[in-house]
Amino acid sequence: MSVRFSSTGLVPDGQAPVSNLLRLLDTVMRGIGQVMLQNNSYAGALFLLGIFCNSVLFGCAVLVGTLVSTLVAIALGAKPVLVRDGLFGFNGALVAIAVIYFLQPDALTWAYVILAAACTTVLMAAMLRLFEAWGMPVLTAPFVFTALCFLLACARFGRLHSTHVLPTAGLPRAPAIVEGTVTAATVVEGLFNGVAQVFFQGSVITGVLFAVGLLVSSRRAFAMALLGSLTGLLVAWGLGAAEPAIRAGAFGFNSVLTAVALGSVFFAWDRASAAYTLLAAIVTAVVFAAVSAALEPLGMPALTLPFVLVVWLFVLAGPAFPGLRPAPGA
Amino acid sequence: MSVRFSSTGLVPDGQAPVSNLLRLLDTVMRGIGQVMLQNNSYAGALFLLGIFCNSVLFGCAVLVGTLVSTLVAIALGAKPVLVRDGLFGFNGALVAIAVIYFLQPDALTWAYVILAAACTTVLMAAMLRLFEAWGMPVLTAPFVFTALCFLLACARFGRLHSTHVLPTAGLPRAPAIVEGTVTAATVVEGLFNGVAQVFFQGSVITGVLFAVGLLVSSRRAFAMALLGSLTGLLVAWGLGAAEPAIRAGAFGFNSVLTAVALGSVFFAWDRASAAYTLLAAIVTAVVFAAVSAALEPLGMPALTLPFVLVVWLFVLAGPAFPGLRPAPGA
Amino acid sequence: MSVRFSSTGLVPDGQAPVSNLLRLLDTVMRGIGQVMLQNNSYAGALFLLGIFCNSVLFGCAVLVGTLVSTLVAIALGAKPVLVRDGLFGFNGALVAIAVIYFLQPDALTWAYVILAAACTTVLMAAMLRLFEAWGMPVLTAPFVFTALCFLLACARFGRLHSTHVLPTAGLPRAPAIVEGTVTAATVVEGLFNGVAQVFFQGSVITGVLFAVGLLVSSRRAFAMALLGSLTGLLVAWGLGAAEPAIRAGAFGFNSVLTAVALGSVFFAWDRASAAYTLLAAIVTAVVFAAVSAALEPLGMPALTLPFVLVVWLFVLAGPAFPGLRPAPGA
Repeated sequence: MSVRFSSTGLVPDGQAPVSNLLRLLDTVMRGIGQVMLQNNSYAGALFLLGIFCNSVLFGCAVLVGTLVSTLVAIALGAKPVLVRDGLFGFNGALVAIAVIYFLQPDALTWAYVILAAACTTVLMAAMLRLFEAWGMPVLTAPFVFTALCFLLACARFGRLHSTHVLPTAGLPRAPAIVEGTVTAATVVEGLFNGVAQVFFQGSVITGVLFAVGLLVSSRRAFAMALLGSLTGLLVAWGLGAAEPAIRAGAFGFNSVLTAVALGSVFFAWDRASAAYTLLAAIVTAVVFAAVSAALEPLGMPALTLPFVLVVWLFVLAGPAFPGLRPAPGA
Repeated sequence: MSVRFSSTGLVPDGQAPVSNLLRLLDTVMRGIGQVMLQNNSYAGALFLLGIFCNSVLFGCAVLVGTLVSTLVAIALGAKPVLVRDGLFGFNGALVAIAVIYFLQPDALTWAYVILAAACTTVLMAAMLRLFEAWGMPVLTAPFVFTALCFLLACARFGRLHSTHVLPTAGLPRAPAIVEGTVTAATVVEGLFNGVAQVFFQGSVITGVLFAVGLLVSSRRAFAMALLGSLTGLLVAWGLGAAEPAIRAGAFGFNSVLTAVALGSVFFAWDRASAAYTLLAAIVTAVVFAAVSAALEPLGMPALTLPFVLVVWLFVLAGPAFPGLRPAPGA
Repeated sequence: MSVRFSSTGLVPDGQAPVSNLLRLLDTVMRGIGQVMLQNNSYAGALFLLGIFCNSVLFGCAVLVGTLVSTLVAIALGAKPVLVRDGLFGFNGALVAIAVIYFLQPDALTWAYVILAAACTTVLMAAMLRLFEAWGMPVLTAPFVFTALCFLLACARFGRLHSTHVLPTAGLPRAPAIVEGTVTAATVVEGLFNGVAQVFFQGSVITGVLFAVGLLVSSRRAFAMALLGSLTGLLVAWGLGAAEPAIRAGAFGFNSVLTAVALGSVFFAWDRASAAYTLLAAIVTAVVFAAVSAALEPLGMPALTLPFVLVVWLFVLAGPAFPGLRPAPGA
């Protein structure tokens, strides 16, 4: 992201004589926080707690990924203020969790994770420069492109073993049929799973901890996340998506991120931006279905690509619509 | 499109005290006219007549799509001069016709049409801003991306029912075989179907009415449309495309648009631009074949993506070739 | 490429009264040299010799392609200095070799080659303008996009007959299995085949001649090419790629180009850029596997797309890392 968000963390903004290790810890936590666009190390710590609650393996992956991508940025001499705000951490966090989720966690896979996390740093720097002229945020695009690339490559590499949770490559068939019945449990579980799936975790408790992390950082982000998840869920239900996917939060997590980004980071809060954010959150659920179908012949998951595409377009279009005011500082 | 074309319409350019309804009608007709790059409400009205001649359903879809995307632009406060010229209408027109063509027209589908048309407005604004630095026209890209997205999404949504005219998803196989024999009837029907297919209509009469609409707006656009259709048809025939596809105008409509855009809108008319336009129209037929094959695993149609890609490249390359002079006002 | 490289050729840079034919010959040789980023007509001549050693047909294709794309650029009035440096030749060279490799070389195919080579000129001009603001090099992107387009189109054109060496369209399946055993012969052959595959030639002798051509032009380019090939080979071996593919140089040629571009053209030579180049060469092998899998449903080869993507990103990211100094003149 090219904007800096409200700064809250273990280490204050001033150049206090804190130890380098504490500063690095703060940076890593902010990196994890930035996955949900929060430049706040307490939020990051709560997100990390949520992940560890669900899986120690994924918690370790997040730590390794964030650390590697941040250290590569430091080694290459990236701008300290960007590093400090965690902007070189969040894509590493996500790519590590994705690789560990889809591949068996042996030594070679961990080396692969480190290479992928280093890649996200270069990709982040490249995209920051590419988008500078438009003031467009990079979002989680470096993660999405790196993860798709490193997962697709496994089809050629016999020593990387998949965990068989990757979608099977196939041809998308329309029309789908309506599968299962949506109940109150679907809605409640889907709501929090949608928040948890931002880090690819399928766990209501993790979703609740993520929501608490958001609340610590920003009340509006908290509200947007839940409303985004609900919007994605309702759109999917209304259009006849499969119940297990709705319950798992599959149609929610991209809408969560879209709503947090547009409704609490990039636009000032008024009626116009509320309507604009709602439109974007609805469209995100449709784009999720489209990207998921488009990647089916490759056996690849949609990840957070729908969020990235929709927020790029809605942010880019913003200045054309004077009814929308940018957020102060965005 | 970032350029404004010759202005002819029901409502003159000056701020005469005409009723808002008449002005909106004029804007909607210009929006329909802009599908073939004509900022002319009489041309738009003739295009609409051509569509109604073939199908009342598609005629209604065009009206709804143009109206919705235009009204969303007005509600968001888009630049009045762009709205007035129909630049927020033509993508809505096309996306509505595409969704209604490929999905069964029940209430949910109409709601889906409205959502898709609203999307094209945001996408148009986003792309106008993205392309500003290069003076590149947006063309029908917002329609193409929105339509592909909304049609692909149907693979996940059980309550949207396709009309079974979508191509079946499959793997492209080279080499193809030559199917059928091209006769004089193939050429005559293919010529006008190629013009009609710009709005996805398979009807010679509709094609003739479209040509008349172009003639009303610009003699050069009229000539370019017919020559473009003929070029696409001859290239496809020469390279051995299937006769039914040639007859249906499948290889023509993108070349129609390419020829109209390069030969009558973006470049001044001389020998250099005539050769450049001819090259582009020939290439468009090859790119149509390529895009159609590339989208086969997704079961998606090429729509007007080949036109968009070729015109982007040929317009972008223009200034590198001093032999080509831009059209006055382009 | 937007930068001019060290100029060495048959015809000196000054406006000496040399015959036009000799000047054209020099330009064509530089065009062939630019395939490996060498603005040097002696290097180009050695590359051409290497190709003729392997196949007279491919040698003729390279000459025709380079000549057509260069002449089209001259006819359209492109900047003489760019034409002279061979920047409108190398994409034509590659597209001609690719079309002739994958299609049976009858009269229609040669016409198709000429059309494709003409396209690369327009695409080159378009991309030069598109990338100007970032100082990004175009590389072989015009070749890649044109070749994919013209090869994909064959699925619709019955009179173009493929040579059956195109990959069969299929769905990528992870995990792969480790095929064959890597021996010393694999490494030696793979090393030089990797260099030869830059022009899609599977021949150790051709690879050796290409390396000599590089040595004539630049010792650093020569070293980078061999190290790049070795890096791609070792990464593929380590991750478990199939032995026949490693031996054929499939995992090498993109890394060759990446290493030559980053290690000898775009960055000054020091420890930081050496590490950066190594990272890029490693990543290129992974991206090759990914692109190859991504194009499997279309039955299309990866060509030099992995090189193009990786070098774009690493060049674009360069200024964000002050540890990296751009090469003088780049």
